[in-house]
Amino acid sequence: MAKPVVALLTDFGTRDHYAGALKGVILTLCPDAVLVDVSHDIPPHDIQRGAIELAACYRFYPAGTIFLVVVDPGVGSSRLGIAAEAADYFFVAPDNGVLTGVFDETPPKRVVSLTERRYARPTISRTFEGRDRFAPAAAWLARGAALKALGTAVRDFVRIDIPQARQEGETITGQVLRVDGFGNLVTNIPRAMVERLAERGPIRIGIGGMSVESLVETYAGMAPGTVCALFGSSDHLEVAEYGGSAANRLGLGAGVPVEVARPAQPVLG
Amino acid sequence: MAKPVVALLTDFGTRDHYAGALKGVILTLCPDAVLVDVSHDIPPHDIQRGAIELAACYRFYPAGTIFLVVVDPGVGSSRLGIAAEAADYFFVAPDNGVLTGVFDETPPKRVVSLTERRYARPTISRTFEGRDRFAPAAAWLARGAALKALGTAVRDFVRIDIPQARQEGETITGQVLRVDGFGNLVTNIPRAMVERLAERGPIRIGIGGMSVESLVETYAGMAPGTVCALFGSSDHLEVAEYGGSAANRLGLGAGVPVEVARPAQPVLG
Amino acid sequence: MAKPVVALLTDFGTRDHYAGALKGVILTLCPDAVLVDVSHDIPPHDIQRGAIELAACYRFYPAGTIFLVVVDPGVGSSRLGIAAEAADYFFVAPDNGVLTGVFDETPPKRVVSLTERRYARPTISRTFEGRDRFAPAAAWLARGAALKALGTAVRDFVRIDIPQARQEGETITGQVLRVDGFGNLVTNIPRAMVERLAERGPIRIGIGGMSVESLVETYAGMAPGTVCALFGSSDHLEVAEYGGSAANRLGLGAGVPVEVARPAQPVLG
Repeated sequence: MAKPVVALLTDFGTRDHYAGALKGVILTLCPDAVLVDVSHDIPPHDIQRGAIELAACYRFYPAGTIFLVVVDPGVGSSRLGIAAEAADYFFVAPDNGVLTGVFDETPPKRVVSLTERRYARPTISRTFEGRDRFAPAAAWLARGAALKALGTAVRDFVRIDIPQARQEGETITGQVLRVDGFGNLVTNIPRAMVERLAERGPIRIGIGGMSVESLVETYAGMAPGTVCALFGSSDHLEVAEYGGSAANRLGLGAGVPVEVARPAQPVLG
Repeated sequence: MAKPVVALLTDFGTRDHYAGALKGVILTLCPDAVLVDVSHDIPPHDIQRGAIELAACYRFYPAGTIFLVVVDPGVGSSRLGIAAEAADYFFVAPDNGVLTGVFDETPPKRVVSLTERRYARPTISRTFEGRDRFAPAAAWLARGAALKALGTAVRDFVRIDIPQARQEGETITGQVLRVDGFGNLVTNIPRAMVERLAERGPIRIGIGGMSVESLVETYAGMAPGTVCALFGSSDHLEVAEYGGSAANRLGLGAGVPVEVARPAQPVLG
Repeated sequence: MAKPVVALLTDFGTRDHYAGALKGVILTLCPDAVLVDVSHDIPPHDIQRGAIELAACYRFYPAGTIFLVVVDPGVGSSRLGIAAEAADYFFVAPDNGVLTGVFDETPPKRVVSLTERRYARPTISRTFEGRDRFAPAAAWLARGAALKALGTAVRDFVRIDIPQARQEGETITGQVLRVDGFGNLVTNIPRAMVERLAERGPIRIGIGGMSVESLVETYAGMAPGTVCALFGSSDHLEVAEYGGSAANRLGLGAGVPVEVARPAQPVLG
């Protein structure tokens, strides 16, 4: 039988021992667990970014994978910890909306609050619930504990507003959600929305007051040094520079407005 | 039976192949080993930081875990390599004090020098003993070799002075030991020392010439943007900013003096 | 029987979910795979650096290890993906020369183009073939698929020119190939080439217009703060500073010319 996979996504960084402590706790409780680092480099306390990265990769994991997601600016406060089942996966996280991206795509079958004290470590640090409450809960799920054993069902778990692209008439309005490690400006505008608009006439792509001149199929379809738009691996519109960083080139980052619309009449002339 | 866990803590970074080479060596000698990255981002050659991070997390690992700790500015010199058993764990490291934090907490049961040549790789690079001497020793322990088989017992292994907090009368004097990835200024002042002082009267917390106005229970107990003191996950005093980096805010870092004492008389009239 | 090892080397960084997606894909197809992170921090799109880091560590892995190497500026273009067997290892990568360092050392026994569609994911993103084409191919090899099943044999796979040191008369000319995380300037000049020259008379080591005054056996053989030359862990000439970064100290980086020759006549006087 396949061993249980526990996939870790945190904002702990890798310089400190924090991620290492989580791993030790899990292996102590569940020596069979297969630990996978998704990322420990979510920007500190950036719940939205954690939600987006998680949503972009969880469905590539084996059914039954347990995601331990700790981006937790509210550690030690009255916010609860939760465990959830959605699609064929399990998630353990603070109840702060970091699972929103997953839940937007796949409504959870069950969400429980981590109230059952015996599935946590005997002493719970007020500043490191990842180690003392969330990691043990993930390990217990990996050992086969039932989700509902971890605590009482909750329905009013926290969701955040991840900005969504909107279309009014023939204008799609969105924004850059994240800048990736290659400097690609990844937007929240879905491929299907753009393609439907493009089927009915020419389109213009504007970002931060500039127009992107072409929409290509792949990075390699650009001339080196050129900024273009394309659909990235999660089927959302990206602005990229072949062989370079579009973010640096354009001086733009997360939050910048992006528009897909009909070509404007010339302003000059 | 649980597979042997080999936990890696180095200053190799992750851009070069060095950590990757260690892992290959271990898996070649012990295909059953479960490799865990604690961190490869200890600041280069920072033995004290390595000692502190290791001490902060080793006890969360399963009994029997083998820690391969390579922070080794003296690689290739006459300094020896050592393997040690302390608490229920094994450690392999250069003999330069990087295990001091563990040994301060748990005196080692046995320390040996890695003199048995057959537990090293056939050729030992003078610049990469991590790969050629320490990783093989860790792998052999993972395969079940006895600690004493690795070499001769040593008693005069190297220890470093990790700065300790001191109390004189009603004044505790310590320092910032490390700045973590969230910008928290983590000191060497233990919770118990502060609490004993606080039980007998009001206290004042000074850091780098400033006073921290409140001692809270958790980060989330602060108003956003406020700098406060609290006890962190290893039960030492920290100075933190909710939603931000106290280190950046105050412009302070490791080594800065920290004082807990009775409130001073007003200086200004 | 030992489980199949899949070792990952990419330029994806660790902030995004990209490396995490690869891992999920592999574990989904081959739950038994033992995943190892060699590095995800190859500088973006730096094929040569990827080739060099891979060549420096692959031979330390267990026979049968499958290396998944994704440094892929041409993703989505007409460049093919390949799988190769060389020495006792397997490699899956874009056909862009990133395996050159391995092949220079060990001519591949067989190279195939990843043309067999059923060993890829059902939908292949034009911007993330690592996830949709290369990771599945690596996973299928881990499951025991024959290399030749993955596609048609190719002989004209791409190789890059990794700069090689050359000797003319009594002068060796090379360059800095990479700067490692310690700031060591690692050159492409092999130990044997230098030693043969040194056997027949005194040598001088020049880098970026400066002379390095001594050639030592190990970092610890230098006085702190001194810049020296030595042979690094891959038996190539390095310029290093004990306790510091030679790259920062000298203001030099990859590509800088390095020369080993007979001492020059004094220029002055």
